[in-house]
Amino acid sequence: MIPRYSRPEMTALWEPATKFRIWFEIEAHACDAQAALGVIPKENAAAVWAAKDVEFDVARIDEIEAVTKHDVIAFLTHLAEIIGADAARFVHQGMTSSDVLDTTFNIQLTRAADILLADIDALLAALKIRAMEHKMTVRIGRSHGIHAEPVTMGLTFARFYAEMERNRNRLEKARWEIATGAISGAVGTFANIDPAVEEHVCAQLGLRPEPISTQVIPRDRHAMFFATLGVIASSIENIATEIRHMQRTEVLEAEEFFSKGQKGSSAMPHKRNPVLSENLTGLARIVRMAVVPAMENVALWHERDISHSSVERMIGPDATITLDFALARLTGLIEKLVIYPDTMIANMNKFRGLVHSQRVLLALTQAGVSREDAYRLVQRNAMKVWEEGRDFREELLADPEVTAALSPAEIEDKFDLGYHTKHVDTIFGRVFGEN
Amino acid sequence: MIPRYSRPEMTALWEPATKFRIWFEIEAHACDAQAALGVIPKENAAAVWAAKDVEFDVARIDEIEAVTKHDVIAFLTHLAEIIGADAARFVHQGMTSSDVLDTTFNIQLTRAADILLADIDALLAALKIRAMEHKMTVRIGRSHGIHAEPVTMGLTFARFYAEMERNRNRLEKARWEIATGAISGAVGTFANIDPAVEEHVCAQLGLRPEPISTQVIPRDRHAMFFATLGVIASSIENIATEIRHMQRTEVLEAEEFFSKGQKGSSAMPHKRNPVLSENLTGLARIVRMAVVPAMENVALWHERDISHSSVERMIGPDATITLDFALARLTGLIEKLVIYPDTMIANMNKFRGLVHSQRVLLALTQAGVSREDAYRLVQRNAMKVWEEGRDFREELLADPEVTAALSPAEIEDKFDLGYHTKHVDTIFGRVFGEN
Amino acid sequence: MIPRYSRPEMTALWEPATKFRIWFEIEAHACDAQAALGVIPKENAAAVWAAKDVEFDVARIDEIEAVTKHDVIAFLTHLAEIIGADAARFVHQGMTSSDVLDTTFNIQLTRAADILLADIDALLAALKIRAMEHKMTVRIGRSHGIHAEPVTMGLTFARFYAEMERNRNRLEKARWEIATGAISGAVGTFANIDPAVEEHVCAQLGLRPEPISTQVIPRDRHAMFFATLGVIASSIENIATEIRHMQRTEVLEAEEFFSKGQKGSSAMPHKRNPVLSENLTGLARIVRMAVVPAMENVALWHERDISHSSVERMIGPDATITLDFALARLTGLIEKLVIYPDTMIANMNKFRGLVHSQRVLLALTQAGVSREDAYRLVQRNAMKVWEEGRDFREELLADPEVTAALSPAEIEDKFDLGYHTKHVDTIFGRVFGEN
Amino acid sequence: MIPRYSRPEMTALWEPATKFRIWFEIEAHACDAQAALGVIPKENAAAVWAAKDVEFDVARIDEIEAVTKHDVIAFLTHLAEIIGADAARFVHQGMTSSDVLDTTFNIQLTRAADILLADIDALLAALKIRAMEHKMTVRIGRSHGIHAEPVTMGLTFARFYAEMERNRNRLEKARWEIATGAISGAVGTFANIDPAVEEHVCAQLGLRPEPISTQVIPRDRHAMFFATLGVIASSIENIATEIRHMQRTEVLEAEEFFSKGQKGSSAMPHKRNPVLSENLTGLARIVRMAVVPAMENVALWHERDISHSSVERMIGPDATITLDFALARLTGLIEKLVIYPDTMIANMNKFRGLVHSQRVLLALTQAGVSREDAYRLVQRNAMKVWEEGRDFREELLADPEVTAALSPAEIEDKFDLGYHTKHVDTIFGRVFGEN
Repeated sequence: MIPRYSRPEMTALWEPATKFRIWFEIEAHACDAQAALGVIPKENAAAVWAAKDVEFDVARIDEIEAVTKHDVIAFLTHLAEIIGADAARFVHQGMTSSDVLDTTFNIQLTRAADILLADIDALLAALKIRAMEHKMTVRIGRSHGIHAEPVTMGLTFARFYAEMERNRNRLEKARWEIATGAISGAVGTFANIDPAVEEHVCAQLGLRPEPISTQVIPRDRHAMFFATLGVIASSIENIATEIRHMQRTEVLEAEEFFSKGQKGSSAMPHKRNPVLSENLTGLARIVRMAVVPAMENVALWHERDISHSSVERMIGPDATITLDFALARLTGLIEKLVIYPDTMIANMNKFRGLVHSQRVLLALTQAGVSREDAYRLVQRNAMKVWEEGRDFREELLADPEVTAALSPAEIEDKFDLGYHTKHVDTIFGRVFGEN
Repeated sequence: MIPRYSRPEMTALWEPATKFRIWFEIEAHACDAQAALGVIPKENAAAVWAAKDVEFDVARIDEIEAVTKHDVIAFLTHLAEIIGADAARFVHQGMTSSDVLDTTFNIQLTRAADILLADIDALLAALKIRAMEHKMTVRIGRSHGIHAEPVTMGLTFARFYAEMERNRNRLEKARWEIATGAISGAVGTFANIDPAVEEHVCAQLGLRPEPISTQVIPRDRHAMFFATLGVIASSIENIATEIRHMQRTEVLEAEEFFSKGQKGSSAMPHKRNPVLSENLTGLARIVRMAVVPAMENVALWHERDISHSSVERMIGPDATITLDFALARLTGLIEKLVIYPDTMIANMNKFRGLVHSQRVLLALTQAGVSREDAYRLVQRNAMKVWEEGRDFREELLADPEVTAALSPAEIEDKFDLGYHTKHVDTIFGRVFGEN
Repeated sequence: MIPRYSRPEMTALWEPATKFRIWFEIEAHACDAQAALGVIPKENAAAVWAAKDVEFDVARIDEIEAVTKHDVIAFLTHLAEIIGADAARFVHQGMTSSDVLDTTFNIQLTRAADILLADIDALLAALKIRAMEHKMTVRIGRSHGIHAEPVTMGLTFARFYAEMERNRNRLEKARWEIATGAISGAVGTFANIDPAVEEHVCAQLGLRPEPISTQVIPRDRHAMFFATLGVIASSIENIATEIRHMQRTEVLEAEEFFSKGQKGSSAMPHKRNPVLSENLTGLARIVRMAVVPAMENVALWHERDISHSSVERMIGPDATITLDFALARLTGLIEKLVIYPDTMIANMNKFRGLVHSQRVLLALTQAGVSREDAYRLVQRNAMKVWEEGRDFREELLADPEVTAALSPAEIEDKFDLGYHTKHVDTIFGRVFGEN
Repeated sequence: MIPRYSRPEMTALWEPATKFRIWFEIEAHACDAQAALGVIPKENAAAVWAAKDVEFDVARIDEIEAVTKHDVIAFLTHLAEIIGADAARFVHQGMTSSDVLDTTFNIQLTRAADILLADIDALLAALKIRAMEHKMTVRIGRSHGIHAEPVTMGLTFARFYAEMERNRNRLEKARWEIATGAISGAVGTFANIDPAVEEHVCAQLGLRPEPISTQVIPRDRHAMFFATLGVIASSIENIATEIRHMQRTEVLEAEEFFSKGQKGSSAMPHKRNPVLSENLTGLARIVRMAVVPAMENVALWHERDISHSSVERMIGPDATITLDFALARLTGLIEKLVIYPDTMIANMNKFRGLVHSQRVLLALTQAGVSREDAYRLVQRNAMKVWEEGRDFREELLADPEVTAALSPAEIEDKFDLGYHTKHVDTIFGRVFGEN
């Protein structure tokens, strides 16, 4: 976790205090369930809740762990210090450390997913606003970085919206995947604890009981979760790449917002760097690097080994904190992105009408000109544009062979941008629903 | 694609003949839609279907492509050779090559998913049979490769079943993700083709229209698809790893089926190598290596660049063919896996009852012995087992301090395996549904 | 392996015929060594060489393997068919299959490295020629895609040269890493074969004996080899990305060579897509995807398991064939890359001299103007350029506060491009050696 | 960076204080060089060194950065606060931030490499000691996890030694790769600073001047560096995997050291988990996950973009700190690993002599028995061992058909372990040099 790429809410989720709070809740709910089953006295279970609003002393727990070399025991010892040895007597009975640790990790990932879902919602809102705003702002579409045919800036935002909505859907699924808990004992057989405890704890904490666990919750769930984060990160890179291209000096169809106060801007007014989108490109790589180790974590030995643990200590916080930060940064970037419609038009006209050559070619053919002739006509006028800097429309209007086939009005018509935007409404309807 | 790791049905899906057949269907359906719109003559559209049952000449298409340097044009040229230039006149009108290529790729991935889903179903069936068969076959559960507490072999199969059922669910989602088509023209604006064409073609081919495409279908869909294959592969590695462990000489709780005829088996009867599961471990790595490049493919430049294409030519066939083969190999392996319940019991008894020490410890405490004393009692008897090879139960029964707290029957009871299997039914109910 | 991304020499290296030829050589040299040791009769060893120039019948070997289920035994059986059972009697004695397979794989990788080294040499030659040619072709340097200060096109080629020379050096090291052989028997103890055999075979085949092997040659060597290919691939992506940027419509400082005959070029003369460099970007991803599985292959169980084998069957050919093709494609692309020096100048002048604002700022300070004043002076003239389209130099020359500090000649001097190119010779000397 | 997986020296290398110290040294040396060139006054250069032993105030620098939004400017401002505005006047002249940042990063990586090299030396020392100690400790070699032929524990340590020595060699190379510095200005042309400054700074700081840089040092160097760390990590996983196997309950040929005081050990004396080696397996994945993003960082846009920066902020510390910790943990593990030679012998004898069946088979053949008969003889005696639990040697000695071909002494000889260890000295000589 790197402070400059993190936000407080997500960071707090991974702090020791949060972890111990969740541990406490799992233990306390488990005691309730054990009491309900008659396994432990009701008063002991009730007494555990005395720590409900107590802030656990992380330093003290660390101190105990330094001696016991066991984090859960250290916590339970500290809990006993708070609620008294007698009240603490039945806490954790029949459970194994992994019951607490794995259920906690899944709660953290679930909450992380909730934050990320809210992040995506904010991003979707920003993308939708900008899409509507620039629904009909025409710019040149590019394949291979080369001018192709006109699109609109709104379509660009709309496709990012659609992509991020898919990501929202994927993340909901990934959240669902990970929203399980297990209180099943040393090797998952419930030998020492009744399944009813697991059911109660999970119900209280918004989880589903893991249908079958070993000592641990199966790690294919986590692999799927981090893979999903990796896909979302890749979409962030996709959007960031578009912006980086739009801001490059020769294109300049958009710029990241650059506040007036930012030093150095006016002596080199062209030197406004798309550093946020470049940064997002890097952050995407960081999120993505969790995917492979999360998959390598799936094949644990028998009922568990601990190889996954260190990996998860790293990627749990790193991937979610970085993705949260990246989504929020991207949202701000989109909200404030400065769009230059005039430059878009200017760029599109760089080749003085050549962008419409395909339409002219088609029109000539439909007017009965043979394919070969049509091609020859378009080509000879195109070359004048390309080599001599002429205007394509004017050349066509002045070419008798062309005007023999097409009237001036018909020629003009081929340069009408409305031809390219006529289905934008349809597409917007598909993406945003009928408005 | 490596022949020895491939099966015919999946391989056929990626052969040129299949691809051209799909291209034809897209083009022919598109003509129908164009005719319905009145854009092209109905008879031309109908004439295209003349090639419905014709086998395209792959060599001929290659020959044309060698000249035109364009695969779609080569195909269209060949199609014209079959149905006649006049019938072919309106084929592909208003479309761009990517409309055909991307829709085809998604059809191939969708069909690949169907094959893989059937593969998983077969695997699930095998796992369920073996789970039921060994529902109560007790073996020692192991954490960290070290004996922990008893489980059953059925539970092992059941958790693999549950994991693969999750994978089935993921793959269905991934299939859904990828089941879209696009016939939207050069930059996705439908400037030259009506959205109704896309709708018709998709409906005919079992796809949903891509709500918003550029020149291409967005690649986050494919990233998610290949990530899902990577998770499934990781689960295969998980199962394979368990089997490899079970078959190692010192454990020998199971063996891959080894036909009598296989040479060399009887002179070194111990030398039966778990080569199938080792191979599956490698195949899992192969499938997984598609994940990162598929994610790198998402960030295309503007309305498309072609960087994704070579990657997909490789990972499309390789990942699906390898996963298909791996799933089938695993299914056969599970079906025929030889299980050794006696060795399971023998292994569990390696430490002559020590596996039950935790239960005895708990029983002593519950009988009123202090924690410290209970621990001391268990420890001194355990050390006799460990160091002198005694039997734990016998030592306990002979220890007056122990028998003062627990009756012989109570001691015997702690060695009852039924204690560990009492919730197996519950777990099976969760995994397989109430039976 | 995908035919369209492969070249014959590298592909041939991975064909069965080549493999069997190497197997034969290993076996024949081993017989020689065994004969020299007196372990087998000299005449039997000599007789093996009868197959020296025989082309092995791959189909026949496959046929035998279908029965024996063992590739090495199938080959030895076929060899016996050729040289006679008696001559074949001592072939492979004391060896294990892996002795042959692993030594062969390393020979193939070593030869692959030789081809790749030659590929890099060709690429280096091309880069050097273009660097010299455009040593002083000035273009704008860009950071963050935004104009910064002038560089030369030659410097761009020179840095690619330096990077590829580092790659050459790395590949030499990787080749050295992998140039080992092992003939050490079932678990690497030489129990059944004298180390002298290994030494002889390796010496004959240009390998070093593996100092300590198990059943197999340790896989850290291969991990390093494929990691190196991954770095080289990343450099290819680096060069390809530069070209893709240069060719985009708004920049157009270079274009991939586009032969006159290529259809469609003249009707849309702007539509020349950098498809080769885009393809190289994808090919780089393909090569790179071998890196992680090669690293996962290192941790084999005990003296070996076979999990690495399927991975290597895939990545051995795929990574080397793809990289060979990519290097060759890149070389052709560089050799024929069309450079547009005029556009470079035009692009640099896009902001009418603003690129020199830093130099002017510095000059004002050095002339005694306070930092604040200097900044204000540059800024107000810069803004006229930016907002009103004026020329920076002219504005400065017309600003009395500026001319009070700097003479016209001094101002002119700040616009001299020679200032930026004065150390190009030094840099070229570092990269290409003193000329 | 996770505190529990980090050690102080490596962690300190990545702390802000260290970074600022290096920044200072680069700036101060650059001033010296500038003064030597006559570009700045000698007294100003000398005055900078006033901060030589000053501890920079990290909080203060952060405070300034919060305003300036620029880390290098914040540092320079703070430096001016220390040495005075006049002394600071020429600091950083002609340089760009990346000159400082990139040179610093390479210094940190170089120093990290030095620590890692020392780590590997310590590991090599430990491996050598254990190799010598157990040079002739016989254990069964295993392929596919199945008993094969005898090896020695010393050979296992020796091959890990050889592998780590290769890693040392690779790391030296990687260190050399990264030991460059660049002081070449905004786009690497030295327009504003003489190459002599770079040469001086690099010489003072133990670096080579980067032959050709842009705004940044080329990232293929870093890709190679992190790839090398990934290979080393994979070797750690390799060793850790061997230990995990050796410690599993059924094998128990070795155990991680378990101090007497560690709680719970004696009630379940079999429950000593190989948690260190499992942890190392996870740490290896963490180090390895830096490889792919480091390769993705190579293709920067034009003279640089900043996408690499966030990735390096993460993987620079994480990969080196984790690898340092892992190497140290592994060294301690190896040093204290408890080896059980008796269990090794017991395991080897699990199949009562069958491990020697191959030698018997060979001996029968060499004694003139036909292959078929020899095989039949070995097989029938082997099956008695396998199915009836007999002893292979005794069965052979009692089989008249066997004794007709081999004398009792000859039979006994085939069970001599010396046969398998006769070349251990040779191998040790290769690995450790002639002793």
